[in-house]
Amino acid sequence: MSELAPAQLVDDLVLANRILSNEGVLDAFGHVSARHPTTADRFVISHTRAPELVEAGDLQLLDLHGARVAGGERRSYEEVAIHAAVYRHRADVGAVVHSHAPSVIPFGVTDVPLRPIYHMGSVIGHEIPVWDIAQRFGDTDLLVRDEKQADDLAAALGPRTVVLMRGHGCVVTGRDVRTAVFTAVYLERNATLLLAARGLGAVRALSDSETRRAAAMLGGAAGERAWEYWTRRLPRRD
Amino acid sequence: MSELAPAQLVDDLVLANRILSNEGVLDAFGHVSARHPTTADRFVISHTRAPELVEAGDLQLLDLHGARVAGGERRSYEEVAIHAAVYRHRADVGAVVHSHAPSVIPFGVTDVPLRPIYHMGSVIGHEIPVWDIAQRFGDTDLLVRDEKQADDLAAALGPRTVVLMRGHGCVVTGRDVRTAVFTAVYLERNATLLLAARGLGAVRALSDSETRRAAAMLGGAAGERAWEYWTRRLPRRD
Amino acid sequence: MSELAPAQLVDDLVLANRILSNEGVLDAFGHVSARHPTTADRFVISHTRAPELVEAGDLQLLDLHGARVAGGERRSYEEVAIHAAVYRHRADVGAVVHSHAPSVIPFGVTDVPLRPIYHMGSVIGHEIPVWDIAQRFGDTDLLVRDEKQADDLAAALGPRTVVLMRGHGCVVTGRDVRTAVFTAVYLERNATLLLAARGLGAVRALSDSETRRAAAMLGGAAGERAWEYWTRRLPRRD
Amino acid sequence: MSELAPAQLVDDLVLANRILSNEGVLDAFGHVSARHPTTADRFVISHTRAPELVEAGDLQLLDLHGARVAGGERRSYEEVAIHAAVYRHRADVGAVVHSHAPSVIPFGVTDVPLRPIYHMGSVIGHEIPVWDIAQRFGDTDLLVRDEKQADDLAAALGPRTVVLMRGHGCVVTGRDVRTAVFTAVYLERNATLLLAARGLGAVRALSDSETRRAAAMLGGAAGERAWEYWTRRLPRRD
Repeated sequence: MSELAPAQLVDDLVLANRILSNEGVLDAFGHVSARHPTTADRFVISHTRAPELVEAGDLQLLDLHGARVAGGERRSYEEVAIHAAVYRHRADVGAVVHSHAPSVIPFGVTDVPLRPIYHMGSVIGHEIPVWDIAQRFGDTDLLVRDEKQADDLAAALGPRTVVLMRGHGCVVTGRDVRTAVFTAVYLERNATLLLAARGLGAVRALSDSETRRAAAMLGGAAGERAWEYWTRRLPRRD
Repeated sequence: MSELAPAQLVDDLVLANRILSNEGVLDAFGHVSARHPTTADRFVISHTRAPELVEAGDLQLLDLHGARVAGGERRSYEEVAIHAAVYRHRADVGAVVHSHAPSVIPFGVTDVPLRPIYHMGSVIGHEIPVWDIAQRFGDTDLLVRDEKQADDLAAALGPRTVVLMRGHGCVVTGRDVRTAVFTAVYLERNATLLLAARGLGAVRALSDSETRRAAAMLGGAAGERAWEYWTRRLPRRD
Repeated sequence: MSELAPAQLVDDLVLANRILSNEGVLDAFGHVSARHPTTADRFVISHTRAPELVEAGDLQLLDLHGARVAGGERRSYEEVAIHAAVYRHRADVGAVVHSHAPSVIPFGVTDVPLRPIYHMGSVIGHEIPVWDIAQRFGDTDLLVRDEKQADDLAAALGPRTVVLMRGHGCVVTGRDVRTAVFTAVYLERNATLLLAARGLGAVRALSDSETRRAAAMLGGAAGERAWEYWTRRLPRRD
Repeated sequence: MSELAPAQLVDDLVLANRILSNEGVLDAFGHVSARHPTTADRFVISHTRAPELVEAGDLQLLDLHGARVAGGERRSYEEVAIHAAVYRHRADVGAVVHSHAPSVIPFGVTDVPLRPIYHMGSVIGHEIPVWDIAQRFGDTDLLVRDEKQADDLAAALGPRTVVLMRGHGCVVTGRDVRTAVFTAVYLERNATLLLAARGLGAVRALSDSETRRAAAMLGGAAGERAWEYWTRRLPRRD
């Protein structure tokens, strides 16, 4: 795999696939990618396969229009356009997760905004937009299939960390793979807690300032502690 | 088993039993069957046994009135009439799942319609009827025990993919075993998400056109990706 | 153990302890007992120990006032009075489960009656009374500690299968161990489904007649199918 | 480790870390500490590490201002000030758990008071205050970072067993490690049940007197039964 990307990135990306599955963020579907660390107009992602099963040999190198550059001819995920568009629009982003995380879906199909309600949730940011593909593209199969749709999604994301997709799922960005994984996991956890809290009554979310301060704090060593933990929880591969 | 059905069908049907149990769709009860691929008036189903435990040797061949044709004399599930009726009424159906999937039950005993709210849920179809056995048959033990009841259930199903049974469970159909399993799993997942979303407020379901487009898309390679994943997640048998 | 009870009863009672733990009905607390099959004024129950860990050697024989008759001097559960009272008052009962099953607790502390909403739940009966220890005994630690309290609880149970205990848990009865286990598991499952259904709106429960018919049906071979399944799901003991 | 604390305390503290993770109270974050049994102005806690992974060699001895006294130079958890403050203010406390237990969070961000609703929940006490760091310290990252903040939190705790922290988590105290673990687990269980019960309607909590009586009862042998059970449920370490 050394011709595709540095060994550390390959390792992290394979672990990211498995961790996100094991922590309930991904099931048979969804995907995670990483920008190539030295060739900024390339990104690494598995060919179409359930994330839980992804191994180093499944990874491919794509350009920022989703064309395969290295790693064989196996079919790509239908929605590589999402990843490509985010990398084109956001030079600060080093990794992208697209998921159908279960607790996130309800916030895409109702009027209730998804907000961080505890410090661990702060990494998702204060404001989470909901992108509706139907608004510009009418009735579709909900997949983001071309650059026009993906650009529109990236525009809705703007400078933020997370964007929800109505009737579909979400996109999570991070400066690197471990950061994106951390945010994707706590996006799901925070959504679960907010669903429960809303059942009790009016909910006080973190303030904008609290969100920024807590997210900055969690951007430090917290990620390494969680990464070690999630890695150790993975079921053994034979 | 070769005299009963082709090896591929037997393998798929055993795996279907185990996958549906492992993914939380079936528990000790419920069953899955497949129409014989070359003898269209026969179907294959286990004798009465918890699906998790079904092995190739448990399968029997039944005719479309539920009579055992091959596979020994062990007692059939009480409700083989459900399977027989669906195969009689629907030439396009190659596999049937009957389950008490937990998140589906609430939609059979309230006035809230079960609708697909994300693209993965689209495989259940836009409209899910609820069949109430009491309407024509009065007080019963809720089981579908004869052809008259099963015909009535099949009529409620009509040309659709799924029908709920009030106070009991549901019937899921598919063109083949893997498709029916896929639909049965995402029927349960979609119902879970809709229960959560309804707790937030009014829910926007997929439109009829979105549902048809997304279901057509998922009818492609998606099923194979999920099947590989669910098979790998199965606990080992010794 | 042969001097305590027949080997089959001992096996079933040990498995009942483990199954009820593994299926989420019992945690470190709660207990299950069986009337002695030939000496009707004796019952078998573990000394005070988490049910998951109970082995044949933990079982003791008690009389119908809770006094230890055989099986050593190890301390009994605080609440053996519950079991003794049910056996005294109900000659038809061969096994008793006392649990803090999680989904059952909410129905003991609100005004919402627990009712069977699907055929599998019918085994709990159409009417589930809630016994409140405070009504006759004022402020207590909620435990049933003496015959007067236990008699009052048994009177609230009356001829029914299940009684809830406000702020505490429930008592489940059965003609034998496997039947009581079956009812205790589906009491919890039915309560979980009713909690979800109530979140959608008004719920249609089974009618009294449907409940009796479905319960009669499940009193047949269904229990054996479930028992085999739950036994096979148990984690191995070394 | 013998120079740090008695072997029994070290064993209990390592097990407490693992049990609280395995029972869903802690994830990658949160921590548990114990006061040194003979040197009352010292406490034992792991360096910064996910609790699931903590081993005896990870423990350090800190003074009641959070300074490391023994056990190496590895970085402490950011919030050791919480533990230090509770030990300074409460001579009766021998162990402290700080967690982000999921079902507890909603009660810190809504107006619904967390109350014991069944006897097992009584160990949390009749009244659970909610401490809001913003009230005195304005916008922060929500962490308790210094003695002034920790003193304020300890004042909110007062003579009680548990205090919630708005938008963050909770602090649980106990006379020893096993008692604090017991309370932390049933705090989470009771909160889960109360969330469900509130979905049904008005909830009757235990009375103050019932709470005190049941908590006194559970302060006896119940803890040992639960500790044995939770220990046996731990996944093996290789």
